[in-house]
Amino acid sequence: MRPSPYERHRGLIQSVARTLAAGGRCRPFTEATGQDAADAGMRSTRTAGKVFDSLLGKPFDLGQPGEAGRARTESSPYGGDLGISYPRCEPSELVAAAGRAAAGWRAAGPYQRAGLAVEILRRLNTRSHELALAVHHTTGQPLSAALRAAGPRAQDRALEAVVQAFTESEHVPADLRWESAQRRGRPLAMQGTCTLVPRGVSLLIGCPDFPLWNGYPGLFASLVTGNPVIVAPHPRSVLPLAITVRVARQVLAEAGHVPDVVTLAVAEPERQVHRRLATDPEVRIVDFTGSARFADWLERHARQAAVFADRSGLNTVIVDSTEDYQGLVRGLALSLCLCNGTVRTTPQNILVPERGFATDEGHKTIRDLGANLGDAVDRLLGHPARVGRVLGAITSDEVRGALAQAARHGPILHASAPVPHPHHPHADVRSPLLVRLRASDESVYTREWPGPVSFLVGTDSISHSLALFRRTVARHGALHASVHSTDPLVLAAVETAALDAGAHLTVNLADLPADPSSALADPPGTAAHFVTGRFRVVRSRRQAPRAAPQPAKAPPAELEAASVAVADSGPGARLVDV
Amino acid sequence: MRPSPYERHRGLIQSVARTLAAGGRCRPFTEATGQDAADAGMRSTRTAGKVFDSLLGKPFDLGQPGEAGRARTESSPYGGDLGISYPRCEPSELVAAAGRAAAGWRAAGPYQRAGLAVEILRRLNTRSHELALAVHHTTGQPLSAALRAAGPRAQDRALEAVVQAFTESEHVPADLRWESAQRRGRPLAMQGTCTLVPRGVSLLIGCPDFPLWNGYPGLFASLVTGNPVIVAPHPRSVLPLAITVRVARQVLAEAGHVPDVVTLAVAEPERQVHRRLATDPEVRIVDFTGSARFADWLERHARQAAVFADRSGLNTVIVDSTEDYQGLVRGLALSLCLCNGTVRTTPQNILVPERGFATDEGHKTIRDLGANLGDAVDRLLGHPARVGRVLGAITSDEVRGALAQAARHGPILHASAPVPHPHHPHADVRSPLLVRLRASDESVYTREWPGPVSFLVGTDSISHSLALFRRTVARHGALHASVHSTDPLVLAAVETAALDAGAHLTVNLADLPADPSSALADPPGTAAHFVTGRFRVVRSRRQAPRAAPQPAKAPPAELEAASVAVADSGPGARLVDV
Repeated sequence: MRPSPYERHRGLIQSVARTLAAGGRCRPFTEATGQDAADAGMRSTRTAGKVFDSLLGKPFDLGQPGEAGRARTESSPYGGDLGISYPRCEPSELVAAAGRAAAGWRAAGPYQRAGLAVEILRRLNTRSHELALAVHHTTGQPLSAALRAAGPRAQDRALEAVVQAFTESEHVPADLRWESAQRRGRPLAMQGTCTLVPRGVSLLIGCPDFPLWNGYPGLFASLVTGNPVIVAPHPRSVLPLAITVRVARQVLAEAGHVPDVVTLAVAEPERQVHRRLATDPEVRIVDFTGSARFADWLERHARQAAVFADRSGLNTVIVDSTEDYQGLVRGLALSLCLCNGTVRTTPQNILVPERGFATDEGHKTIRDLGANLGDAVDRLLGHPARVGRVLGAITSDEVRGALAQAARHGPILHASAPVPHPHHPHADVRSPLLVRLRASDESVYTREWPGPVSFLVGTDSISHSLALFRRTVARHGALHASVHSTDPLVLAAVETAALDAGAHLTVNLADLPADPSSALADPPGTAAHFVTGRFRVVRSRRQAPRAAPQPAKAPPAELEAASVAVADSGPGARLVDV
Repeated sequence: MRPSPYERHRGLIQSVARTLAAGGRCRPFTEATGQDAADAGMRSTRTAGKVFDSLLGKPFDLGQPGEAGRARTESSPYGGDLGISYPRCEPSELVAAAGRAAAGWRAAGPYQRAGLAVEILRRLNTRSHELALAVHHTTGQPLSAALRAAGPRAQDRALEAVVQAFTESEHVPADLRWESAQRRGRPLAMQGTCTLVPRGVSLLIGCPDFPLWNGYPGLFASLVTGNPVIVAPHPRSVLPLAITVRVARQVLAEAGHVPDVVTLAVAEPERQVHRRLATDPEVRIVDFTGSARFADWLERHARQAAVFADRSGLNTVIVDSTEDYQGLVRGLALSLCLCNGTVRTTPQNILVPERGFATDEGHKTIRDLGANLGDAVDRLLGHPARVGRVLGAITSDEVRGALAQAARHGPILHASAPVPHPHHPHADVRSPLLVRLRASDESVYTREWPGPVSFLVGTDSISHSLALFRRTVARHGALHASVHSTDPLVLAAVETAALDAGAHLTVNLADLPADPSSALADPPGTAAHFVTGRFRVVRSRRQAPRAAPQPAKAPPAELEAASVAVADSGPGARLVDV
């Protein structure tokens, strides 16, 4: 007999659980990708390339119910139309199929579900390079960045979600025994069971920049807590999630489960499949990472569901002082460039006192910083080989429009210009735009600008910077914030302001927010609500069989009725009516 | 130096935490109320009565900001107008005061907050009888039931919320150390902190039947996770929560905190203080237990807040077969009577196959059951002394209207009639109404009827009963459900249906749902979401100081910039552009 999925992966699950409980991090997939990658069965780049090529220009089959046509919505900024046609299924049919699959998945229990989730991740791990190519060609990210965001690190992040969901499930006590309150000196022995009841059909709305990195935590947390998941990718980036769904369905089917526990919902944008699914009465969980605008829409309209929305918001850098001016400039310049046009992690608002700030190279004005940043960007992009590794290719007209519009709002410190890509002459690759604004231009810099748009915002003082940061980020959110200061008092004030604003903070470190593995990784132990909001606990109780032999018909109803109706002892009896 | 509140109660907090983690229950307050009550400092009934009397006909002072007048909204169904006038404060002023108190309360940290919460409970415990009198005179519950719902058991329930919130806070790792992904063979040592950030101002909307039992879990979970709480009682039952708020403010002030961490919001119903507070942009958490109608309203309108709404719904009994017909009849009769007119825990829908069911006394028809239930109710209420202990006094015209209206919907199996109260001749005490309905009368029995209104609903079969149960309870909720059956297959099917409907189930036990300490008590470990939804975790990270001596200016920005910009090893480098 083959071991169950849980038995097969028990060691891994338990060791990750122990590490997380101790406040550590666990990265088995990442750690295995060095010399052990081949042993771990990961396909080589060459094989992955062949597999990827074999997908192009063909129907992508999933065997899902309710197929009503085919949808082709992707084009590579590096290589034209991918030509992959996905099944376009009726949203209502997908919801119905998920509903039918729900009972069996609930009955599988957390052990089997966690085991199968790890098995899915293990198989995805062997296809990391194929997934990276899919992310590269649909999001425009450089290939190395795509591998970081779609490969072993994303799988490790998913594994943490699996183990957190499993651990929370284990916290639900399966069997309870207690004594009912003592009445007339006779406690009633009770027993009960608690059952984790999944919330219902879960919807993952894929994002166009980090479809796997941002998608996996919700997908796997929902699966392990027993909810079937409909995966609805962004039309521009379907393939990474489509491969994921196909692997999941294969693992489910091999284990004897209805594969419709996980399905893919793709359609042309005008069909509004996200909105239709998010407002379906049977959809009870929605995961989304992206613009505050759509997050607000979801929270307003997906009223029947628990909405887990991560707003990208206004990523902010606060500059107060530094002991490493060159490092600060280089780091900031890199973060302006990295993956530009493809991700929403670019630091948008750089808050600097108008009158300048202290550095190891003396006092620097905001004008100095603007000029030095522009030069540093040009130096960084001066090596053609680096361009392909650092810059992304622009996939969306929205980004092109934003670049044109933002340039009209203030003096341009660095203009966004086309940059030739070393390998893909037709790719639309552009350098970042940096615009100088005043603090009073709040209506400009409190909008969420897509692509490589950044503002150098002059403030009256560091206190003014802090007040702006606190107010704008508390209102609009942020994926990250960072501060550069040599003053412990300022650092303490910024840390408090970050708590007020609810923003994660990086202190005196190079700004590399566009690398999700460093910027967006959640530390362990912080995601309880993310997991526990996906289920509730239902209990049943009955009288426990007595240890000593008793009359067969020891009647519980009589016991309780008699004891309450003629209650003459216990705390209640000590009170007299007044 | 006096020990800190946490030090003082550490032993209790830790022992409760250990017990809960092991799946057990902890009832230190309940267990202390036997012979140890005096030692525990609990006031005697006589003293409590005097204290209670001293409150009547007087202003109730709290020293809150924004007092704009006085509100007198309560009258006792046993003793006329209580004559207590509460401060009527502007809702916006209370929200502003809570906002001002928030930073200090957040800074106090989970240890101090948990210690102060236990101190509040300890003082409430010494006033259990006074609180019971307040519940008795405002809800109409019999005094013994009021003590069960307002005294040590409610305090134990609150203590579980305190400890669960404290435990979840402790799960947040304060200090993290990890290595950033290895680049060019040089891992970067990182350190970080995680901070629990409370969600914001919390609003407790008090319910008129179990103001403390239903109110304490949200109040204490919010406090321990760092959120200030505005307590807005139901206008009919202010006093129990007003005493609670006064005790909390005293404990806070003695510990040097701004007492406005907890405030009371009372006003005449027409001022709609609940709705105004629930939709205030600064209110971020709302707790409510009660009608599905208002719960729906909250979820639709309190969009800025996390709403924790418990719907009372359609409490349902499924009768299939029994080995103890007399016990079943007695238990059901008692549950129809218990606290009637004062609580929403009466089993409303009793589903019985039209063609009857098997019992230890032979086959019984639905008609037999109806007749026997009516007789059992009359027998139970035949002893005048019992009436005062079992029945409640009706406080609301809504209940009177419901009794009159429900009686028109079908044959009456037991008419609701006035019953003289042994001590309070003017109290409006009534026996329960039992009406026979058909399964097709769904529009009647899917409404939530207040007071002692129950329906005996004839179904085609046990399968039909199950289908009705699953559909109506999944749609409208239920505080509890119970089943009587000797058939293991039926029991298994009912357990599954209860999971589908999300209802807590009691199996073959006397129906005593009106006793909150047995029916509504949550088993441990089931409330994670209830706690974790009240905060989020914000982290900050920086480079860790190196263990070995290093150049003073080891520039993190340069390290990272260089390693990414010229990344030539690691997984990314193994991919070539395609």
